Amino acid sequence: MNSEKIILGIDPGTTIMGFGLIKVVKKEMQFMQLNELLLTKYDDHYLKLKLIFERTIELIDTHKPDEIAIEAPFFGKNVQSMLKLGRAQGVAMAAGLSRQIPITEYSPKKIKMAITGNGNASKEQVAKMLQSLLNLKELPKNLDSTDGLAAAVCHFYNGGKLQIGKNYTGWAAFVKQNEGRVDK
Amino acid sequence: MNSEKIILGIDPGTTIMGFGLIKVVKKEMQFMQLNELLLTKYDDHYLKLKLIFERTIELIDTHKPDEIAIEAPFFGKNVQSMLKLGRAQGVAMAAGLSRQIPITEYSPKKIKMAITGNGNASKEQVAKMLQSLLNLKELPKNLDSTDGLAAAVCHFYNGGKLQIGKNYTGWAAFVKQNEGRVDK
Repeated sequence: MNSEKIILGIDPGTTIMGFGLIKVVKKEMQFMQLNELLLTKYDDHYLKLKLIFERTIELIDTHKPDEIAIEAPFFGKNVQSMLKLGRAQGVAMAAGLSRQIPITEYSPKKIKMAITGNGNASKEQVAKMLQSLLNLKELPKNLDSTDGLAAAVCHFYNGGKLQIGKNYTGWAAFVKQNEGRVDK
Repeated sequence: MNSEKIILGIDPGTTIMGFGLIKVVKKEMQFMQLNELLLTKYDDHYLKLKLIFERTIELIDTHKPDEIAIEAPFFGKNVQSMLKLGRAQGVAMAAGLSRQIPITEYSPKKIKMAITGNGNASKEQVAKMLQSLLNLKELPKNLDSTDGLAAAVCHFYNGGKLQIGKNYTGWAAFVKQNEGRVDK
């Protein structure tokens, strides 16, 4: 088994697509990239979808991720916004499917839970924890762009081999469960 | 200007994807293909999306359509079903976007209107009119599969050069507006 793998995390929204890459080496996370694709300046719905698709393909072809994690809300304001969101998710997924890369989706709540131990954590709390976990020098101004990276880290905790017990849901929970083992 | 063009019509649903191809030669429609991809037998949501994406890519690469028309409902039962529908539409759109083919979407009402002159026409009425317009020898058992073809025909009427007047919305309307000109 290959002990190294790359995880691409994506949050495909219709106004911003956040994405992040981490490398897992010997069961430890290494930060690779955190970025965003701003879509607010484009009016054309198809252009937005095209940009999401193309950027995802580009990320895959450049970094060759082994797995893709997508932040996928299952609830929304109304059917209109859900249809648009579904399309944005669909094109990002199509990019992964076209390159035969396994995709796992996580709800925002599950991602927050995996990273902070609290499913209702604020964006700031998630970002701060990501900064600490991955030794990020700085956080982006727009915290929305951290959602993709958060999905990748959530996937590492959920799909990786680090799981200690059944209730293990991330670093925060790990700390809680293993206080004696963590160097504070 | 090329006087010939091929239109691919798709109705990307989560249980069945209907698709149809027409060729427009000298401003007249020629029937090419009508088919369906049944998805009910698959449980895996990603597999369904993958199959929709791959079939659409295959149709594009085989028939080289110049334009794609998609039947896209804008309303649905609930946010869950709209998210799923949006994803199905998204992967079909991604296939078109990845091959640089212009996509136009039409609501079910608009398609029914273009083909029968009645936005509330039944599936049977639309199918019968398609059969007549395209000289189809027979109709498929599952009329859901005609929805893709209907989208292609709607696109022909709306995007083609046959438009006579502002209120022209399809063959049925054309007949109504031009009764003296139609050989019955």
